Amino acid sequence: MIGVFDSGFGGLTVLGELARQLPQYDYLYLGDSARCPYGVRSADAVHEFTREAIEYLFDEGCPLVVLACNTASARALRTLQTRHLPRFRPDRSVLGVVRPTVEALAQLPPGALPGQTPPSAVEGTVAVLGTPGTIESGSYRIELEKLAPRLRLVEKACPLWVPLVEAGELGGPGTDFFVHKYLDPLFAAGARAPSALALACTHYPLLHEPIRAAVPAGVRIISQGDIVAKGLRDWLQRHPDREARLSRDGRRRYVTTDDPIWFAARGSAILQPVLGLEGGAITVEKVRLRQFSATV
Amino acid sequence: MIGVFDSGFGGLTVLGELARQLPQYDYLYLGDSARCPYGVRSADAVHEFTREAIEYLFDEGCPLVVLACNTASARALRTLQTRHLPRFRPDRSVLGVVRPTVEALAQLPPGALPGQTPPSAVEGTVAVLGTPGTIESGSYRIELEKLAPRLRLVEKACPLWVPLVEAGELGGPGTDFFVHKYLDPLFAAGARAPSALALACTHYPLLHEPIRAAVPAGVRIISQGDIVAKGLRDWLQRHPDREARLSRDGRRRYVTTDDPIWFAARGSAILQPVLGLEGGAITVEKVRLRQFSATV
Repeated sequence: MIGVFDSGFGGLTVLGELARQLPQYDYLYLGDSARCPYGVRSADAVHEFTREAIEYLFDEGCPLVVLACNTASARALRTLQTRHLPRFRPDRSVLGVVRPTVEALAQLPPGALPGQTPPSAVEGTVAVLGTPGTIESGSYRIELEKLAPRLRLVEKACPLWVPLVEAGELGGPGTDFFVHKYLDPLFAAGARAPSALALACTHYPLLHEPIRAAVPAGVRIISQGDIVAKGLRDWLQRHPDREARLSRDGRRRYVTTDDPIWFAARGSAILQPVLGLEGGAITVEKVRLRQFSATV
Repeated sequence: MIGVFDSGFGGLTVLGELARQLPQYDYLYLGDSARCPYGVRSADAVHEFTREAIEYLFDEGCPLVVLACNTASARALRTLQTRHLPRFRPDRSVLGVVRPTVEALAQLPPGALPGQTPPSAVEGTVAVLGTPGTIESGSYRIELEKLAPRLRLVEKACPLWVPLVEAGELGGPGTDFFVHKYLDPLFAAGARAPSALALACTHYPLLHEPIRAAVPAGVRIISQGDIVAKGLRDWLQRHPDREARLSRDGRRRYVTTDDPIWFAARGSAILQPVLGLEGGAITVEKVRLRQFSATV
């Protein structure tokens, strides 16, 4: 079973692409809706919550977990991979969304190594749009400097885009105002305008239309569902021992830390067009995540 | 010591007024920043988080807790008062912000009983603006129907106002759009326009200027800091046995569940103008709230 984690229901855009492109595997999706959004929390809080989430998914039988949440990927993945997993969970893997997104920005093949930069990626400007936590972490910059050091990166925190999506404000003058507010400086006169934008938050693809309308034609807009699925396929091919441990019954299970009925309604609307759900709706369980630190 | 609880730092607007109007008491403020905002969560989650918060404040020595958070007051207070406290904590008290706000809307004296409605409160229209959770709970309607049953109430959920304040968007065209979006229908042609608006969320007073500009002159705008302080003063006079148990050294202590440095910066900006902090800043501790339900 492959675990997929997000702070809320937004990561179902990623789960949908995974289940569509790699339907043979079993999936367990966890959305921490009781504590979302993560994008405004401190690095410590995001790290702690993410560790609780992956330990839950490990305990439920996932040898592999995909962090669909950009803030968790940006703030917690490195430490998890270098400290937590080697010491406590050497037989488990956790993958994030930063690396495949950077590969797509730089037009590199999945799994590219530093130094393999093709000529197309050595110049120009690209942009990453994310939550304050994602941008503040510097993770996209660090990863891009490794893989395509001569590519220029502009980063922009878009703190109101998640609340706009959560409030159902997917268009209209108020939404347009805050789409332009964050994007216009990137394309202002005299700016070295980016040729590609990465929507580095699972909520942002739901604002694709106003974003598309606010940037010049020809700018590539990168949503993460598809590229994360392609990146996972590639990773599984390169790690056949890990791939062999994944169960393959095409099962999907959904759990959340807050109201499962609400979650099922929002989640079904995202997944139905992608997966064609039987009966049109998913079934969701409410779970509690175990806390590891003691109260003193 | 009086405990004051809010989902984040916004409740410091209430704490500031309490400490200014009733400076003799000790105060312990808890902001659950790691899990804010509460306004978008289910009733179950709000109830659970609020119970964890008040138990923390009880354990730290508060015989009395004020829920500065409207969502917690609206979604959790009634059950806490009727079930949790009588059974487990009969010697403790928890007060909320709904009752004093309704008294202010109806222009009733603090502690008014049902049936004591003065003529001024028996007709007309008043409005409550709050988070989706606060409005959905129906608490303001229930309380107003008890105290001033002939007053007409219109309620409006304003889901983007908290994110706007959190993002520092206290004015400008985008903010004005979403201020008008929620307020204009209340004052549209043919509507029975309200003569008073209650800002039933600790964040909303920070949008007072654009709100004031969006409503007709003469409409009363009720912020909660002052009325909660007046309501508490009255309650303490009517409950001298409970009042006698409060410590009186003028101490203030601040704790949060997320980054204390960030919290101190935001909190000091709110409190400095009201309390004139020594050194200009508060000191904040990070704490962890105990979870009561077991993992199964």
